[in-house]
Amino acid sequence: MADTDEAYVLRPVGRVVSPLTDAASAPRQGDEGTPAAWLVFDTSVERALRDLSVGAELLVLTWLDRARRDVLAVHPRGDESRPETGVFSTRSPHRPNPIGLHRVRVLAVDGLRVQVADLEALDGTPVLDVKPVLGAVNER
Amino acid sequence: MADTDEAYVLRPVGRVVSPLTDAASAPRQGDEGTPAAWLVFDTSVERALRDLSVGAELLVLTWLDRARRDVLAVHPRGDESRPETGVFSTRSPHRPNPIGLHRVRVLAVDGLRVQVADLEALDGTPVLDVKPVLGAVNER
Repeated sequence: MADTDEAYVLRPVGRVVSPLTDAASAPRQGDEGTPAAWLVFDTSVERALRDLSVGAELLVLTWLDRARRDVLAVHPRGDESRPETGVFSTRSPHRPNPIGLHRVRVLAVDGLRVQVADLEALDGTPVLDVKPVLGAVNER
Repeated sequence: MADTDEAYVLRPVGRVVSPLTDAASAPRQGDEGTPAAWLVFDTSVERALRDLSVGAELLVLTWLDRARRDVLAVHPRGDESRPETGVFSTRSPHRPNPIGLHRVRVLAVDGLRVQVADLEALDGTPVLDVKPVLGAVNER
């Protein structure tokens, strides 16, 4: 196969500020009951976020900095009665490149700070990217 | 805000093998008409992909290695009649951390090679991660 020896460097564009500080008590997905959180962006990306508006549905990509990268199979949702499953078939945070993918809704925008609903990431989690949820083909 | 000076290192887990070799002629999204492509994984992640099966709906995360990282605003879909928009409100490949997000369907599995429909990434694009599309809360 093609060479995969090279590496790429991610530089966070911001940070999650959230009441969620403990992985054990955080919800496993954002739509399973989460408090509102803030995305606090670096001044260097101010121009990239200028069109975010209240009500927008977004995908937030994060770096799950407390995850393990050497885990290749898990019991889904930590339930040992479920068979061990390859991580590419689960949403486990533990995976070779622990990138979190979160669907959120914008509640408020205040300069470099964007408040969102449904973000289950822990306080301090680095933010990598923000993308709009895609609508129908003719609305793109 | 919190410190964002640190950096994180991505190591590709595989590579896209696709008839699409030219950004100018590739579709802008996977559901806008794309040929079947293969994800060719590194032997080191064989255990992570062992539960992928034909018909599965997946999210593939890639590193858009031909994108620019210094672009913060674009005309959506390259259409100069549309107003310049911050990249966090667009799906432009050009963005500070150019991570591609692709929804695909598995057509075939052959050891370390997985054939998928609807992948608009170019031939050679590094694969970072694979996640299942989430179903209803009670099916997780």
